[in-house]
Amino acid sequence: MLIEFGERTTKKHAVVIGAGFGGLACAKKLRRSDAYSVTLIDRNPYQLFSPLLYQVATASLPEDDIAFPVRTAYREVQFVRGEVTNVDATAKKLTLANGKIISYDDLIFAVGSEGTTFGIPGVAEHAFQMKSVSDAREIRRSLLRTYESVEDGLLPLENLNVVIVGGGPTGVELAGAVRELQQEIQREFEHIAPKASVTLLEAGPRLLPSFHPRSSKYTLKTLTKMGVQVEVDAAVVEATSRSLRLKDGREIIAGTRIWAAGVVAPPHWKFLGETDRGNRIKVNSNLQLNDAIWVVGDAASYPDKNGCPLPMIAPVAIQQGKHVARQIRRRESSKPLEVFKYRDKGQMATIGRRKAVVEMRSWLRFQGSLAWLTWLALHLAYLSGGRNRTSIFADWVWNYIVWTPRRTITD
Amino acid sequence: MLIEFGERTTKKHAVVIGAGFGGLACAKKLRRSDAYSVTLIDRNPYQLFSPLLYQVATASLPEDDIAFPVRTAYREVQFVRGEVTNVDATAKKLTLANGKIISYDDLIFAVGSEGTTFGIPGVAEHAFQMKSVSDAREIRRSLLRTYESVEDGLLPLENLNVVIVGGGPTGVELAGAVRELQQEIQREFEHIAPKASVTLLEAGPRLLPSFHPRSSKYTLKTLTKMGVQVEVDAAVVEATSRSLRLKDGREIIAGTRIWAAGVVAPPHWKFLGETDRGNRIKVNSNLQLNDAIWVVGDAASYPDKNGCPLPMIAPVAIQQGKHVARQIRRRESSKPLEVFKYRDKGQMATIGRRKAVVEMRSWLRFQGSLAWLTWLALHLAYLSGGRNRTSIFADWVWNYIVWTPRRTITD
Repeated sequence: MLIEFGERTTKKHAVVIGAGFGGLACAKKLRRSDAYSVTLIDRNPYQLFSPLLYQVATASLPEDDIAFPVRTAYREVQFVRGEVTNVDATAKKLTLANGKIISYDDLIFAVGSEGTTFGIPGVAEHAFQMKSVSDAREIRRSLLRTYESVEDGLLPLENLNVVIVGGGPTGVELAGAVRELQQEIQREFEHIAPKASVTLLEAGPRLLPSFHPRSSKYTLKTLTKMGVQVEVDAAVVEATSRSLRLKDGREIIAGTRIWAAGVVAPPHWKFLGETDRGNRIKVNSNLQLNDAIWVVGDAASYPDKNGCPLPMIAPVAIQQGKHVARQIRRRESSKPLEVFKYRDKGQMATIGRRKAVVEMRSWLRFQGSLAWLTWLALHLAYLSGGRNRTSIFADWVWNYIVWTPRRTITD
Repeated sequence: MLIEFGERTTKKHAVVIGAGFGGLACAKKLRRSDAYSVTLIDRNPYQLFSPLLYQVATASLPEDDIAFPVRTAYREVQFVRGEVTNVDATAKKLTLANGKIISYDDLIFAVGSEGTTFGIPGVAEHAFQMKSVSDAREIRRSLLRTYESVEDGLLPLENLNVVIVGGGPTGVELAGAVRELQQEIQREFEHIAPKASVTLLEAGPRLLPSFHPRSSKYTLKTLTKMGVQVEVDAAVVEATSRSLRLKDGREIIAGTRIWAAGVVAPPHWKFLGETDRGNRIKVNSNLQLNDAIWVVGDAASYPDKNGCPLPMIAPVAIQQGKHVARQIRRRESSKPLEVFKYRDKGQMATIGRRKAVVEMRSWLRFQGSLAWLTWLALHLAYLSGGRNRTSIFADWVWNYIVWTPRRTITD
């Protein structure tokens, strides 16, 4: 069955696969084009604001608040909920899982990334990933329900231990938040809760490897002070139903095991072109795979000035999405295409409720409370949708200022 | 196994079963007693603010916002999560599903009510109930997912129809909200959404049977104007996987079938004493079943001045809960027990986003926008927990003033 999307005019059809930061930025900028109708495809009808996923996983925010509805976000963009299973670059057609076929004139490939287990045995079965709303929901349930089961004598005390693998921003933010949840929950389970622990494992020599070593040091110090057990040079070789086993032979027992150790682009799309180690598709300096296919965000392998691929973070995706929209419009006006240049605006990670590390320029790095306020402000600013922004802001006022009990539904 | 709860002092032990409006009101008032330690038992660690459950079911509020965490709500009250399966009134002990046994000196029985199908065939299997968070979640998923399935050609158009059984406040509020959701969603599914309908079925001769006939008339008129198909004298005799069958032989086809036709106390507890038709336990004028067992809220059958049992609504439960706490403390001070008298503060129901009916006294009834504002203010005032109050207030600002897209997660 062949279904035509887009208006039946002389307009060309741009199809964006993926409603993440990159895809949405591109669709938003392209939607007012006179020459193109735009279709956006995603398996979910929302953009997930994944930088705050860890707060859903630790019962600080309701899941609705980090999901921005995309179906009606931009009136000119046609949204299709579905999973793209194939792209025929010759015929310029793509196939959805439900059998629908959609033709395109330009394809913006913004499928993002997924968690990877690096093939380590047991991880897929015995550890939670941290990529989707349902991942976060399962982590939240595990974290909270374990207290009840331990109190009821159904599980041993050691199940209160939590182990997080991966010393990047996700692992660091999650470790801090889990530790604070464990401390808060002591009021609720006075007898058992003090036995709970969090261990953060990083295979490399330091936390936040993409940050300046001073930020890593500060993060280690702060997490340790909060009571997080940080282990660097701690490579995991196996996950079991009750523990993680390390390369040096030690076994870390934990009831909740979370895998935040790395992401790769979906391997399914490797056939489209040459890919790097993370399955990311190598693109030319205009972010193109060919004249009609553009790749942006985590799915694209684009070198920085040192020749290493750009990091898989939201600012890269947003800038690339906008760049592609601009190029498509330039080409329409017969202007030459421009080379993509990433403007590095820095990176940041929060450590618990009052501290963060921020790196804006090589000469502008700061830590502590001011960094945390910067983190807060920038995350609010980057949220899509005023409702989610107010709602999260209100929740933060309660979490950070009033210090109110956590969100509570676990079924 | 016998586990002692409460402090090991000379204090007596009051056990409250049920963290609803009645149980929580009682625990709150009793917690500062010098003579009693208080234990609160519920199967969920939250108080469900069920008057707003319909807004969760129609994707207006996130579910977290109508759940007030009770575990740490009152420092002096010990919370136990569990399901009480037996009460031994002679030994003054109760048993939990996990085998724990808890002794009491006074038992406050506040177990609430559950939906009833009146034994009508097919209802339990083929219709959603409207009592718990997970009921609301399932309704929300059915309401929203159906549009996608119809658009994908997986379900026929008739599945967009929704039928709600029960013309009480729950049915009326739900019908209005579903109708508004259907209208809002037209922006998202332009081609199919106009075909959607809502039918509200009431077995009796008028909507809101407990209200003044003028309120019923106004409600009928307002719902009809909104596009809800209201049918009175329409008794359901069977539910199927695609329809409801009426007594007069007609069949109402609908993809989402919601049963809001009535509640009864859980039949499990009938052995405790004499019960009325709704399984409610008959109590004396002090709300006692015996010297040590008090029954409050939906579970108690207590006559109003005309001899009919008081309605199963939050204000009755709250007043009864407080009354029982007061009586227990009076008895402690050797004062005589007082007879419970219900102070009727009236009733109200909202009809869509801008209208409501309010009845405060027999001479004070009003409808329309002012009634709706009254409804809004009173519901905010009765919410437990400042966080939920702000959060719902913020959501309402967006829903009612800014008119922003609905909540969107459906998996």
